[in-house]
Amino acid sequence: MTDAAPSKFRFLMVRHFTLPEHVHERFGMNDRAPKEAMLMNYQHLAPLLEDVDWDFHPGPMATHGDGDGYPETREELAIVGSNRLPVVREACESGRYNAIILLGGVDPGFWEAREIAQPYGVAVTANAFAQMHVACMLGARFSVLDISEGQSVKMVDLIRLYGFADRCASIRVVDYPLPRKPFDYGRSTLEERRGFARGKPSAMLEEAVREAIACIEEDGAESIILGCSGCYWLQDPLQKRLKEMGWDIPVLEGYRAAIEVAKLMVNLGVGASGIAFPPPLPRRWRRIKTF
Amino acid sequence: MTDAAPSKFRFLMVRHFTLPEHVHERFGMNDRAPKEAMLMNYQHLAPLLEDVDWDFHPGPMATHGDGDGYPETREELAIVGSNRLPVVREACESGRYNAIILLGGVDPGFWEAREIAQPYGVAVTANAFAQMHVACMLGARFSVLDISEGQSVKMVDLIRLYGFADRCASIRVVDYPLPRKPFDYGRSTLEERRGFARGKPSAMLEEAVREAIACIEEDGAESIILGCSGCYWLQDPLQKRLKEMGWDIPVLEGYRAAIEVAKLMVNLGVGASGIAFPPPLPRRWRRIKTF
Amino acid sequence: MTDAAPSKFRFLMVRHFTLPEHVHERFGMNDRAPKEAMLMNYQHLAPLLEDVDWDFHPGPMATHGDGDGYPETREELAIVGSNRLPVVREACESGRYNAIILLGGVDPGFWEAREIAQPYGVAVTANAFAQMHVACMLGARFSVLDISEGQSVKMVDLIRLYGFADRCASIRVVDYPLPRKPFDYGRSTLEERRGFARGKPSAMLEEAVREAIACIEEDGAESIILGCSGCYWLQDPLQKRLKEMGWDIPVLEGYRAAIEVAKLMVNLGVGASGIAFPPPLPRRWRRIKTF
Amino acid sequence: MTDAAPSKFRFLMVRHFTLPEHVHERFGMNDRAPKEAMLMNYQHLAPLLEDVDWDFHPGPMATHGDGDGYPETREELAIVGSNRLPVVREACESGRYNAIILLGGVDPGFWEAREIAQPYGVAVTANAFAQMHVACMLGARFSVLDISEGQSVKMVDLIRLYGFADRCASIRVVDYPLPRKPFDYGRSTLEERRGFARGKPSAMLEEAVREAIACIEEDGAESIILGCSGCYWLQDPLQKRLKEMGWDIPVLEGYRAAIEVAKLMVNLGVGASGIAFPPPLPRRWRRIKTF
Amino acid sequence: MTDAAPSKFRFLMVRHFTLPEHVHERFGMNDRAPKEAMLMNYQHLAPLLEDVDWDFHPGPMATHGDGDGYPETREELAIVGSNRLPVVREACESGRYNAIILLGGVDPGFWEAREIAQPYGVAVTANAFAQMHVACMLGARFSVLDISEGQSVKMVDLIRLYGFADRCASIRVVDYPLPRKPFDYGRSTLEERRGFARGKPSAMLEEAVREAIACIEEDGAESIILGCSGCYWLQDPLQKRLKEMGWDIPVLEGYRAAIEVAKLMVNLGVGASGIAFPPPLPRRWRRIKTF
Amino acid sequence: MTDAAPSKFRFLMVRHFTLPEHVHERFGMNDRAPKEAMLMNYQHLAPLLEDVDWDFHPGPMATHGDGDGYPETREELAIVGSNRLPVVREACESGRYNAIILLGGVDPGFWEAREIAQPYGVAVTANAFAQMHVACMLGARFSVLDISEGQSVKMVDLIRLYGFADRCASIRVVDYPLPRKPFDYGRSTLEERRGFARGKPSAMLEEAVREAIACIEEDGAESIILGCSGCYWLQDPLQKRLKEMGWDIPVLEGYRAAIEVAKLMVNLGVGASGIAFPPPLPRRWRRIKTF
Repeated sequence: MTDAAPSKFRFLMVRHFTLPEHVHERFGMNDRAPKEAMLMNYQHLAPLLEDVDWDFHPGPMATHGDGDGYPETREELAIVGSNRLPVVREACESGRYNAIILLGGVDPGFWEAREIAQPYGVAVTANAFAQMHVACMLGARFSVLDISEGQSVKMVDLIRLYGFADRCASIRVVDYPLPRKPFDYGRSTLEERRGFARGKPSAMLEEAVREAIACIEEDGAESIILGCSGCYWLQDPLQKRLKEMGWDIPVLEGYRAAIEVAKLMVNLGVGASGIAFPPPLPRRWRRIKTF
Repeated sequence: MTDAAPSKFRFLMVRHFTLPEHVHERFGMNDRAPKEAMLMNYQHLAPLLEDVDWDFHPGPMATHGDGDGYPETREELAIVGSNRLPVVREACESGRYNAIILLGGVDPGFWEAREIAQPYGVAVTANAFAQMHVACMLGARFSVLDISEGQSVKMVDLIRLYGFADRCASIRVVDYPLPRKPFDYGRSTLEERRGFARGKPSAMLEEAVREAIACIEEDGAESIILGCSGCYWLQDPLQKRLKEMGWDIPVLEGYRAAIEVAKLMVNLGVGASGIAFPPPLPRRWRRIKTF
Repeated sequence: MTDAAPSKFRFLMVRHFTLPEHVHERFGMNDRAPKEAMLMNYQHLAPLLEDVDWDFHPGPMATHGDGDGYPETREELAIVGSNRLPVVREACESGRYNAIILLGGVDPGFWEAREIAQPYGVAVTANAFAQMHVACMLGARFSVLDISEGQSVKMVDLIRLYGFADRCASIRVVDYPLPRKPFDYGRSTLEERRGFARGKPSAMLEEAVREAIACIEEDGAESIILGCSGCYWLQDPLQKRLKEMGWDIPVLEGYRAAIEVAKLMVNLGVGASGIAFPPPLPRRWRRIKTF
Repeated sequence: MTDAAPSKFRFLMVRHFTLPEHVHERFGMNDRAPKEAMLMNYQHLAPLLEDVDWDFHPGPMATHGDGDGYPETREELAIVGSNRLPVVREACESGRYNAIILLGGVDPGFWEAREIAQPYGVAVTANAFAQMHVACMLGARFSVLDISEGQSVKMVDLIRLYGFADRCASIRVVDYPLPRKPFDYGRSTLEERRGFARGKPSAMLEEAVREAIACIEEDGAESIILGCSGCYWLQDPLQKRLKEMGWDIPVLEGYRAAIEVAKLMVNLGVGASGIAFPPPLPRRWRRIKTF
Repeated sequence: MTDAAPSKFRFLMVRHFTLPEHVHERFGMNDRAPKEAMLMNYQHLAPLLEDVDWDFHPGPMATHGDGDGYPETREELAIVGSNRLPVVREACESGRYNAIILLGGVDPGFWEAREIAQPYGVAVTANAFAQMHVACMLGARFSVLDISEGQSVKMVDLIRLYGFADRCASIRVVDYPLPRKPFDYGRSTLEERRGFARGKPSAMLEEAVREAIACIEEDGAESIILGCSGCYWLQDPLQKRLKEMGWDIPVLEGYRAAIEVAKLMVNLGVGASGIAFPPPLPRRWRRIKTF
Repeated sequence: MTDAAPSKFRFLMVRHFTLPEHVHERFGMNDRAPKEAMLMNYQHLAPLLEDVDWDFHPGPMATHGDGDGYPETREELAIVGSNRLPVVREACESGRYNAIILLGGVDPGFWEAREIAQPYGVAVTANAFAQMHVACMLGARFSVLDISEGQSVKMVDLIRLYGFADRCASIRVVDYPLPRKPFDYGRSTLEERRGFARGKPSAMLEEAVREAIACIEEDGAESIILGCSGCYWLQDPLQKRLKEMGWDIPVLEGYRAAIEVAKLMVNLGVGASGIAFPPPLPRRWRRIKTF
C-alpha cells in the first residue's frame, strides 16, 4: 500500500481467539509480532493485500475448554464464536473498516457477525464460506480436505447452514488435529507444518494427495478447498502434485479466498442481504418464508 | 409422581435464561415460584409429567443485549445458547438425570448440548427439534407459526441445520414479539397471552388462525408447529378453530413434544448418534463424509 | 402392568399373517402360546410394556403365494397388507385400543391402516416407519440392514413413500431370507436366529457387522435400523461389536421403536394428520397440493 | 386391425373392478357390451388401436367398501389393486399378450403387476404412470387435474413412489367425485360427463379451465395430465379452451398415453427392469441400494 | 413400408454433420450409399421402420475444429448443433415430416430444434434424450456408458438441462473416442466396432461389461443407456453378457429409443410444450417461473 | 488506469454481436464510439475499471434471424453464442488478457468459452453467471427480473446448467423486450431506458418495483438480479425504491458483477476447473461421474 492515496479497501483481519502469552510458542502464536508475522501465510497474501489498508486483531482471550488448546468440539467452537462478536461490533462501530475477515477454521461466529455488520454496510467474510463460494464458480461440486473429525463434523453443519449440501462432493479427513490438551495425540497439523517449512517430507501432505485423488476420481470433486486455515501450506504442493499427475483441479485456501470475496463485496457495495440478516424488530418483515 | 418407586424418567428442564429479579414481572418470570409455576403451560404438561421425576433450572443470567429483554437476533441467541452449556455439562456430570429438556424458542445451544451429553448417555431435546420430528410422523410437511421476524430467520437456520428443509411447507409469522427494550413495539406475545388468560379476545389468535389456514390451503402443511414456546396457549384454541372449520390438522406445542421425545429416547436407550456427535479426538473417525 | 389402575396405553399388536397350525413349527409360529410367547423378542420388550395394557393378534390367515411361506414379493406383501386391514378396522371400532402396532417387515398395510384409524383417534405404528423416524432424531442419515433382495426393494418403495430418500444413506442386504417354498435356499434368517439362541456362532451376524461398518465408513450412516423384524436378535450383538471397535452408533430394532412411537403419539393425542389421511368425501378438501 | 397379418401388438386392457350387473347403469358400466363399448373414450382410441390386437377384461368383482361404488380411499384402492393381480398373472401365463394396460384412476395394483409380468417379458402400463412419463418429455414440470380429494392424496403417494415429486408442479382438484354410497354428494364426474355428451354446459369443465390456468400461471406447469380416467372427455375441450386463450400446453389423457407407452415398450423389447422388479429369491442380488 | 397406404409416420433422420468425401472412409461415412446403408445399425432398426416413411439427411458440412474429425469439445458440439438448425427449419417448412430424429451423440442442437419445430407441430427426438426417458420408465435410475471424457462432460450438461440429475446413477466412461486429428490416440470406438463386426474380441466390450457391472452393483443403476450412438453394437452383447451373469437389466440404444419416442409423440399428437418452447414474443407469457 | 504501472487486470469485454452500421441507431449501438461510450452503463463501471487495462470488442456480425434485431429465441441465442467463440479463442491466443468478460443477456457462448480459455489460464465471466454467484453470497435465494418471455426461458436453461435451481426463488418477467423485427411490439426496454435517461417516468420501472416486491414477499428472494444487461439502469432506482419501503435487499447488475468476479478469479489464479472443462482427449479422465 503506497501512502499516496487511501485504499478503497479497509479490512480488519480477526483471528478466532488468542491464548495467554506463556503458551504462544506451543500453539504457534505471537501476539507481539508485527501484523504481517501474525497473519499466517503472509508471503502468499502479500500480493493480494497490496491495495488494502488492513489491521490484525489477535482475537479474544480464549474461554473455551480449559483455555489451553485449539477448539475442536461444537461447544468450544460456539464459545469461540460468541466471544468474537464484541470485536466485530466494535470494529463496525469504529467506522474504520469496510470489511472484516474472520480467520480460523469452520468460521466461528460468522453467521452472527454478518447480522451485526449488515446495518453498518460492512462486509464480513470467513474462510470456509469464501472458499465454498469460489469453488462453486469453478466447477459443479467441491470437496473439503479437513484435518480432524471434530472440525469436519462442524464443517458438515456449516455446509447445511450455508446451503451447499448439493455442491459438496465429500469431506475427507486426514487426521492431523491442531494441538490441545493433553498434547499426546501424536499427529499434529502444527508439527507437520513446521517440518514442511524446514524441508522435511510430510506424511500429512502424502495423505492429502491420496485423499484429494479420491475426491476427484471417486467423489466427483471439481475443485478442492482446505477445511482448516492452519493447513494453508498444503495448497501449493497439493495443487502441484495433482497437476503433475494430470489432474488440473483448483485447490483453494481460506485467507486468500476470504480477502478476495471481501474485495468483491466492497467494490459492489454489498455485504449481506438485509432480508436474510434483518435487524431486531425490523420495520418490514416477511409474512411467509419457504425453502 | 408417587413416592413408592423411583421413576425411570429423571428429567431436568432448563429455561434459556433468566433476568434480574426486579424485571421479572415485566418479562413474565418468577424464579422464586415452585417449579410447577415456573414451567409455562404446566396445566397441560401435568399429565405427561406424572411419571417423571423432574427439576427446573431457570437458566443462566442473561448477558446478551443489555441483559434486559428476550433474545431476538442471531447474536443474542448465540450468546444465550453458549451461556446455557455449563448448565448442561453440570447436569450430565451430576448423574441425576437421564434427559435434559431445553426450553425456549429456537433451541438455543441445543446442538452443542447434544454433543456434551452424548458420552454421558443423557438424552437432550428441545422445542423446535422435537416438534419437527413429531410433525413429520403425522404428515409429509409441516408449517411453523412464529411470532417475530427475528425468531423466524433463526428458525430458517435451524431447519437447514436439522435437515428439514424438504419437510417444511412454510414458516408464517404473526408479528407479536416477546418484550425487549425499548418496550414500545406495540404488539406483544406476552400481552396477548395475558389478555387471553383473562378471557379477552386475542387479535394474535385471529391472525394465527388466518395464517394457519393459508399454511394448509396454500402452502401444503399437513401439521402445524408453534415456533415460540411462549405462544403455547395458542395450541388449543387454534386446533379447535381449525377443526370446527373442517381442517383436522394436528397443532403441536413445544414442551409436550420435547417431553415425549425425551421419554422415547430414554426408553429406547438412545440420545444422539456418537457418529454425528463425536467426542474430541475420538478413537475412531470417518475418512469420508457425504450429504 | 399392575391391576390397580388402567394404563393410559391400550395397544393391540397385530402380526402380518398367520399360517395353518401344522406348519407353525417350520415358520417359528405358535398361535396357542400366551401372548408373551407369541411376541418375538419379548424379553427386550417387557420393560417397555410394563405400563401398557396390550393384546396380541396373530394376523389374518395367509392367502398370498401358496399360503405356505413368508411374503417376499411386492405382490405377496400387497396381499398380506390388504388382508390385515379388516383387523385394523375392527380394532378401531371396538374402542378398546388407543394404538395399534403393526408387526412384520416392510410394514404391510400400514399406510391404509393409518387412514382407517385416523377418524377414530387411534394411533398406528409399524416397524420400519417407527425406526426411520427415531433414526433421524439421532443423526442426519440412517442405513437399513436388510435380509433379502425382495424385502429390500420393497423397503426402497417405503422410503420413497415415507419421504426418507434424503435421509437414507444406504440399504445393505445380508442374504438370509425368511423360509418359503421350496425351502431349499440354504441361507435362512430363522435358522441363524435359532442357532444364535443356542449359542452357535452366526455367519449372518458376521456379515451384518461387516456391512454395518461399510454403512458407517463408506455410506455415511449415523444410525442403523433393522429391515426385518425377524432379525431383532442382531440388535444387541451388533451394537456391542460396533461399540467395541470404536463406532458408537445407535442400532435400532422395530418392535421397540414402534411401541415407543405409539406411546409418544398417545400421550400427545395425535396419530396421523387428517389432511394427509382424509376420510372419503371429506367436508373440507385442498384445491392444490404440492411437493 | 385387418385380418391379413397378426399385429405385433397384442394387448389386454384390464378395468380395475366390476360390480354386480344390477348396478351397472348407476356406475356407467355394461359388461355385456362389445369391447369397444366397454372401453371408455373408444372414439379417440380407435386410431391408436388400429394396429393392435386387443382384448378387454372388465376387472374382478369389487370387494372393497360395501361393493357398491367407486373406490376413493387408500384402503379401497389397495383392495381393488390386490384383486386385480390374479387377472394379470393369468394374462401373463396365457402367453396371449405382450402388454397389459391397467385402466382406472391412480393405477391400482400397477407396481405389483409390473413385478408379476417382468419375468414373462410382458409390458404393463397404467394411466397415471404413462401420462407422467409422456408429460415429462414435453416440458420440465406437469400438473395433475384431479376429481376428488381421495384420489388426489393417493396420487401424491404415487408421485412419490414413481419418483416424480420434482417434476410435479401441482395437483389441482375440481371436486367432482365418482359415484359411491350414499350417492348424495351432489357433484359427480359421471353426471358431468353425461351432461357434456348431451351438449349441456359443464360446470366441471369451467372449473377445470380455471384450475388449468392457475397450473400454468402460478404453479409452473408445462403440461397437464388428467388424474382420473373417467374425465377423459375434458381433454379435448380443455386443450381447445387453453389454446384459444394463447396457452399452447399439451393436455394428456390416460388411456392414449398408456397405449402408446405400451407400444414403445413392446417395440423396444422392454417392460420393467429386472433389477427394480426382481423375482423372489433371485439368483443375483444387490448388496447395496442407494437413492 | 408397403406402397399401398401412406404411413402415419413420416420421419426425417438427420445426422449431426458430414465431412468432405475424401475422408469418408476414415470416419466410417459414405454419403452416396442408399439411406439404409447410411443409417448405422440399420439391421436392428429395420423392424421399427417398417411402418415409417423416412428420409435420411447426412447433416451439414462440418465447420468445427479443422473440419477433420468427430466433435469432442463443448465448442465443437455447439458449432455442430448450430449448423444443424437450418436443416431442421427447412424440414419443418417442407411439411413433409411429422417427426425429425436428430442422430449423433449428446444431441447437438436438440433443444433449439424442438423450439423451431414446436409451432409446426413436428416432433423432434434425439438419442440421449429418448434413452433417458425410456430408461426412467423401466427403473428408478439409469447409468450412462460413454466413450470419452469430452462426450461425457457434455452428457453431464445435458442431464442437468433435461432435469435427470436425480435419475442418473452414474456416467461411466470407457475411453475409446471417435477418430479425430491427430489420429494417434490409440484407442478408437470405430476400430473396435469394425473389429467386432469381423468377429474379433473387443477390449472395449470387456471394459463396458466391467463398468456396467459397477453401475449395477455400486452405483444403483436399474437400466443402462449408451452415450454415443457409434457404440450401438455394444447393446446386444452387453445385455446378453449381463443376463448370463444374472443381471436382468435393460440396455438401451439411441436410434431405437429416438424412433419409438417419435412414434409415441406423433400418435399422441404432441411434440414439445408450447410453454417450455415458446415462439418469439408470444401472445401469452408467464409472469413467474419457478423450479 | 494511470500509466505508471501495468495493471494486474487485463480484461477484454466482448459484446455478444454487432449489426450493420446503418441500423445502429435503431438498436442503440455505435461501434465507432470510444470504448467507454460503447460500454453500456460506463458511469457506474468507471470506478471498478480504474485499476483495469481493458479493451472492448463489439462482437461478431450477427447471423441469427434476419440479422436485424436482438436475439430472443434459443436458436438465435445459440447462433450468437457460437459466433462469439472465435473472438474468445483469438483473445486467449493473443496473450493480452487475463480475463474475458462476455457481455449480453443470458450469457451466449459462455460455457464453451470457459472451456476454450481454461488451458490458457484466462478467466471468463458473464453477466448472469456472475450475478447468480454473488447473489448467493448475500442470501439463500435470489430472484431474476427479466424483460421477455424468450430471455426468461433461456434463463431457466442456464439456471439448470449452472446448478442454481435450488437457489433461484423465481424468475419474474416484465414484458419489455429488446427491439427486433417487425418492431411493432409496442413495449420496449430500449425506449424505456431512453425515456428514463431523459427524466420521464417509466412504466417498466413501476412494474419492476411491483414484481420485485412479489419476489421478496411471496417467492422468498433475498437478493435480486437483472436478467438482461440492457436494463442496468433499473438497478439504482429499484434498489432505492425498495429501500424506501423498508426492504433492504441487494439488487445486482450484470456488468459490475462480471467485472468483480473476473478480478477475484485473476487474483486467486483460477478460472475454471480443468476437471469440469477438460481439453479434448485429456491425459487424465474420470472413469465415473455422478450428480
